[in-house]
Amino acid sequence: MDKRPIGMFDSGVGGMTVLKEIKNKLPNENIVYLGDTKRFPYGSKSKETIIELTKKGIEFLLKKNVKIIIIACGTATSQALDVVRKIYNIPIIGIIEPTVEYIYNKQNIKRIGVIATNGTIRSNGWEKSIKEKINNIFVTNKACPLLAPMAEEGWTNNEIAKLAISKYLEDINNVDALILGCTHYPLFEGVIKQVLGDKTEIINTGKTIAEFTKKLLKDKNIENKELNNDYKIYLTDIECNFVNIAKELIKEDLIINKAEI
Amino acid sequence: MDKRPIGMFDSGVGGMTVLKEIKNKLPNENIVYLGDTKRFPYGSKSKETIIELTKKGIEFLLKKNVKIIIIACGTATSQALDVVRKIYNIPIIGIIEPTVEYIYNKQNIKRIGVIATNGTIRSNGWEKSIKEKINNIFVTNKACPLLAPMAEEGWTNNEIAKLAISKYLEDINNVDALILGCTHYPLFEGVIKQVLGDKTEIINTGKTIAEFTKKLLKDKNIENKELNNDYKIYLTDIECNFVNIAKELIKEDLIINKAEI
Repeated sequence: MDKRPIGMFDSGVGGMTVLKEIKNKLPNENIVYLGDTKRFPYGSKSKETIIELTKKGIEFLLKKNVKIIIIACGTATSQALDVVRKIYNIPIIGIIEPTVEYIYNKQNIKRIGVIATNGTIRSNGWEKSIKEKINNIFVTNKACPLLAPMAEEGWTNNEIAKLAISKYLEDINNVDALILGCTHYPLFEGVIKQVLGDKTEIINTGKTIAEFTKKLLKDKNIENKELNNDYKIYLTDIECNFVNIAKELIKEDLIINKAEI
Repeated sequence: MDKRPIGMFDSGVGGMTVLKEIKNKLPNENIVYLGDTKRFPYGSKSKETIIELTKKGIEFLLKKNVKIIIIACGTATSQALDVVRKIYNIPIIGIIEPTVEYIYNKQNIKRIGVIATNGTIRSNGWEKSIKEKINNIFVTNKACPLLAPMAEEGWTNNEIAKLAISKYLEDINNVDALILGCTHYPLFEGVIKQVLGDKTEIINTGKTIAEFTKKLLKDKNIENKELNNDYKIYLTDIECNFVNIAKELIKEDLIINKAEI
């Protein structure tokens, strides 16, 4: 039993799609969420910069006395997770491992597509992690650099979103499942389903992370067993569209705090 | 008479639209162009970061023995120009001043629209500079954060570009002229013309900068009077779509060099 909050870090509000799933799956847990909206997007930044910013984010969360940290950002996971795990003495979960675990446990996925930011696709982190754990799996990668900026504009379900997604998914045919390798992408889930049809399973990393986190808290015996949920949202820049997106996703009147990091 | 090159700095390849106009207007001049593609886009970065990166860019160009510097980036102009002008002892031209000069000399522009990145619009640099010099002018601003990333994707003349531009220009009606306040935007000039029709003059800052630079070189007597043009392009990251866009714009077989800054 451990009432300390779960810490979550993202480059913006994309990680809110993960927060939503954690909230559903682990309703007792307190959460401190930090979105580095001032420096968004991470997708086009160098590895060194992403490591530096992720360290700053983690240090902010450590001061909030969190018990575990979820890096709810595809780019920060693929570029910085290995490094920060060696520095900080706290369990840190990224978005790749829980999803690979999920695919591993499903026997029917043999051909998989991954969509993500430029930085994530270039790092090849998804393909490497999938193939390390699973034999005989075919992976197709596609960078979709416009999707995260479109999500921040709130353009997730208009004609522009539909056309952009159709264009990006042109080359991804005949896969059993598609991983949404950036935490913004579940915002486009409706449109992606329309484009791909029913045959393809869409893997929302928020759901796999929530499942993985639940198991980790249980294994370490650090669950919060009393209903005591408190969500604290910090953003490094609060004058942004993100606030509306976050509120829409979470469907609660969130109080947004400014974080100076 | 001065054979030293003109230095140009941009966050990416947007400044190539300026290079194209300089090349047309000042065919004798040698040019060294630096595009900070590794750190693109600047539009969403903090003022401090943009100043730091612009200083690095200028120092790179100074080592190339340039005679003047053009900051061919809307965001760097609005956030960093004032600061760097105080630091470096070389004429530095941004994208705002030449355009304000152009509007000042035209009597018929009374209502003007400005489209640019988030950072540029938030800084209010365009509106302030226009109103400082010109009385009784009405200015409407609109941030278009997706356009520069779309330009890098090469999506400048497809259905997605048309829809995005129509959406962004919805609120800009009845202006005499529209300033393309980001140097990427001339890549969309065809589509913007289709959306706005003939009544609105589209001001390509590349053209106003070329005119302004020509006058400045003449006034200071540092023109290159012999035909001796040499274009050196440096990018901080050369694995990018930008190379194709640059080549298409300039219609020459450009040699792209990697700059380590």
